[in-house]
Amino acid sequence: MVKTAGTLKLALLVASCSIALNLSFVMKLYLGMGLRASSEQDNDGWTRRAAEEAEAVASTDCSGHGRAYLDGFLVHGKAACECNMCYGGHDCSEFSPDCPANADSGDPLFLEPYWREHAASSAVLVPGWHRMGYSYTGETLISEALEGQVRKLHAVVGNADTNGKFILFGAGSTQLLYAAVHALSHDKNTNTSSPVSVVAKIPYYNLFETQTDFFDSRRYDFLGDAAVWKNRSDSGFIEFVTSPNNPDDQLNQPLLKGPNVKTIHDRAYFWPHFTAIPASPPDEDLTIFSTSKLTGHAGSRVGWALIKDKGVYERMANHLLLNTIGVSRDSQLRSPKLLKVVLEDGGRGIFEFGYGKMKSRWQRLRSTVSLSNRFTLQKVPSQDCTFFQELMRESTPAYAWVKCEWEKDQDCLEVMRAANIIGRGGALFKADKRYVRLRLIRGDDDFDHLVNRLHKLISREERRG
Amino acid sequence: MVKTAGTLKLALLVASCSIALNLSFVMKLYLGMGLRASSEQDNDGWTRRAAEEAEAVASTDCSGHGRAYLDGFLVHGKAACECNMCYGGHDCSEFSPDCPANADSGDPLFLEPYWREHAASSAVLVPGWHRMGYSYTGETLISEALEGQVRKLHAVVGNADTNGKFILFGAGSTQLLYAAVHALSHDKNTNTSSPVSVVAKIPYYNLFETQTDFFDSRRYDFLGDAAVWKNRSDSGFIEFVTSPNNPDDQLNQPLLKGPNVKTIHDRAYFWPHFTAIPASPPDEDLTIFSTSKLTGHAGSRVGWALIKDKGVYERMANHLLLNTIGVSRDSQLRSPKLLKVVLEDGGRGIFEFGYGKMKSRWQRLRSTVSLSNRFTLQKVPSQDCTFFQELMRESTPAYAWVKCEWEKDQDCLEVMRAANIIGRGGALFKADKRYVRLRLIRGDDDFDHLVNRLHKLISREERRG
Repeated sequence: MVKTAGTLKLALLVASCSIALNLSFVMKLYLGMGLRASSEQDNDGWTRRAAEEAEAVASTDCSGHGRAYLDGFLVHGKAACECNMCYGGHDCSEFSPDCPANADSGDPLFLEPYWREHAASSAVLVPGWHRMGYSYTGETLISEALEGQVRKLHAVVGNADTNGKFILFGAGSTQLLYAAVHALSHDKNTNTSSPVSVVAKIPYYNLFETQTDFFDSRRYDFLGDAAVWKNRSDSGFIEFVTSPNNPDDQLNQPLLKGPNVKTIHDRAYFWPHFTAIPASPPDEDLTIFSTSKLTGHAGSRVGWALIKDKGVYERMANHLLLNTIGVSRDSQLRSPKLLKVVLEDGGRGIFEFGYGKMKSRWQRLRSTVSLSNRFTLQKVPSQDCTFFQELMRESTPAYAWVKCEWEKDQDCLEVMRAANIIGRGGALFKADKRYVRLRLIRGDDDFDHLVNRLHKLISREERRG
Repeated sequence: MVKTAGTLKLALLVASCSIALNLSFVMKLYLGMGLRASSEQDNDGWTRRAAEEAEAVASTDCSGHGRAYLDGFLVHGKAACECNMCYGGHDCSEFSPDCPANADSGDPLFLEPYWREHAASSAVLVPGWHRMGYSYTGETLISEALEGQVRKLHAVVGNADTNGKFILFGAGSTQLLYAAVHALSHDKNTNTSSPVSVVAKIPYYNLFETQTDFFDSRRYDFLGDAAVWKNRSDSGFIEFVTSPNNPDDQLNQPLLKGPNVKTIHDRAYFWPHFTAIPASPPDEDLTIFSTSKLTGHAGSRVGWALIKDKGVYERMANHLLLNTIGVSRDSQLRSPKLLKVVLEDGGRGIFEFGYGKMKSRWQRLRSTVSLSNRFTLQKVPSQDCTFFQELMRESTPAYAWVKCEWEKDQDCLEVMRAANIIGRGGALFKADKRYVRLRLIRGDDDFDHLVNRLHKLISREERRG
């Protein structure tokens, strides 16, 4: 980083100014003077207050079961702990043993420890005047720094071919899925005057249906299971294909083919944490990724689409413009900084951490479930992983797709609920109620709690049996 | 800020650690060691690298005609200047006299100097693990810190009554306008089975029409001028009312009334920079504000709606959930920090700065235009302003709504274009082509260039005349 003579000089200047200012700061504190007046008038060292605030909040003791945030509640002027599920008290040290294990939704915090380990390289200081306007150089809505990092990332991971593709950023994959359906259904070349049919193979992520229904365009309707339309796709169709699939981790391929069929590839889970990366990156017409499942930063609301066709790209870009005038420039500052950390060691650090974490979770989960004949987990064939150069790698997906095997357990969600475990029932994915999805990418406390509950449930059945 | 003994102790610790670390940093530089390895291993001072990067970029010399951003281009490893319109060269010192004065769209940078003056209090340092998840405490998508600051702000400014109102945040007013039309047109109580008609009084902000047409819901259609439907509003109607209005600054009131009429109040310009704040804050069913025209941070994409009806609030919340899963948590960290600076002196600082800036721009513009009988500017009656306690205050709007008065000048946009001025033609607002809108809230260089061009145009006419 510090390479040129000019920069070196500048860094020395900054460093020596900092010493002087730190001393004057200490003196001012002793003299009882406020922090604000002094910092505000200093030309150098204007970043110090923000840095100190962040360090003070980060040092809040939450007993390893929570964390304080800069924009959290204050108690007696200090940042309050926000505790992990089932932990409470001012320092999160109190565990509530009867609290339910929530594995329905929740925050993807499995990578949080990685970012704490990389505190210095991943922090970003946003000046008050940073990117106040709408546009970047060249009047675009997209940071070239972000776009550059994303192209590098795919080249390194090998999970997408970005050559000759347009890249669009949206507020998470959520906004891009909507923009994609809109763009594909408003294609003037689509050989149909009636609304386009939107489908997905069961079990599917319910947002596909909810979103399509909710936004109720004149140009599309949600028609459910793609399998039903397999040999009848002569009119206009859009098929969502998630691979690996949410909820069941299957490596889905499009079911519908033909000149009037468009495919939206949802690749949110196609990262080395979760699945083998094959030798050849897929080269798809329209593919959607997001940072939520890559770096764990769901809160930043950043996703991207790789798009082959210029017309589709332009219609999607128009959608993002008229919907939100693009993605928050604050997130577009932070995301490339995070991706830079990811890329610094060719992605090995974060993916080894993530894969290690998911692997140990799956080992514990499998060994727990293997004690019972009541429940089974999804099976996905092992595959060679080019990224880790690992032969026949087992997948370590973000969700367990649990089946209740006993005849009487027709509603698996209820079986779990009786054991104080909250999952997401198969019905929400249009699958059998014998299935339930359990989310495995929350923090360690949450996962521990979930496995302990499952263990208790299974041990109890063993004793009864 | 630094009040309790505990915090004081911490601050001293941080300050003294910083001195030691700065010294070691200087030594490491001399020893030729990289910055990264050292910072990454330090537990204290993890914020330093981000702070130094920000200070280095901020100190880039762009001759006062540009600025460097943290996520901008690098030239020889240093952040490159991004120059104001018509300036170029590596340090933005080269002015291109023939470059057009663009007053069509552009970044609202008129408040940028205010934020530079408040560098220390407005900076925010985002740790790598900040709000990775979706939710805030209480499983909401909205920062309570942000909501609290917005309620305080309206109480201080007196431009909205937030009592008993729900607050929703969206990606700028753009996303909220869409969510509002959707929510109001999907009201099951609306006494109509046919699509709701969406209207706005001419001249209106063209996004109302573009957005409504583009998202092509089955439940609404854009029907143009509200005045046409004044006495015929028996079926379902949604009227957009912008006050002060974009483009002509008129203090519009709803034209349509009745049990089947809903109003969306766009209050983007209802701030003391631009207009008098009357004694009683309006108490409206659905009002939309944004930070773009308040603090100038258009890039953060943060706006909010004040909503009286619970059903409308819930439908809008659902819209924001299914569209983007709420607003970037990174922007929701930064915005309350900025609003805190605004509120520190009861808003006087920023509004006096903003009003002062707009007043001097309008004085120059009026005196320039007064030299000619070819152009006139919009007239808005002066009003008493409670915020500034100023009687009969003239408005100082964000846009000039220029009319070409000479018989031959039927297309005012063309008249401007011939003088190398880019405006936005009246036709885009469904008004007469004799009008053109000029944007007055860009940076000082842009405004100077615009007024100089206008002056030249007018002097030339004078000489001819």
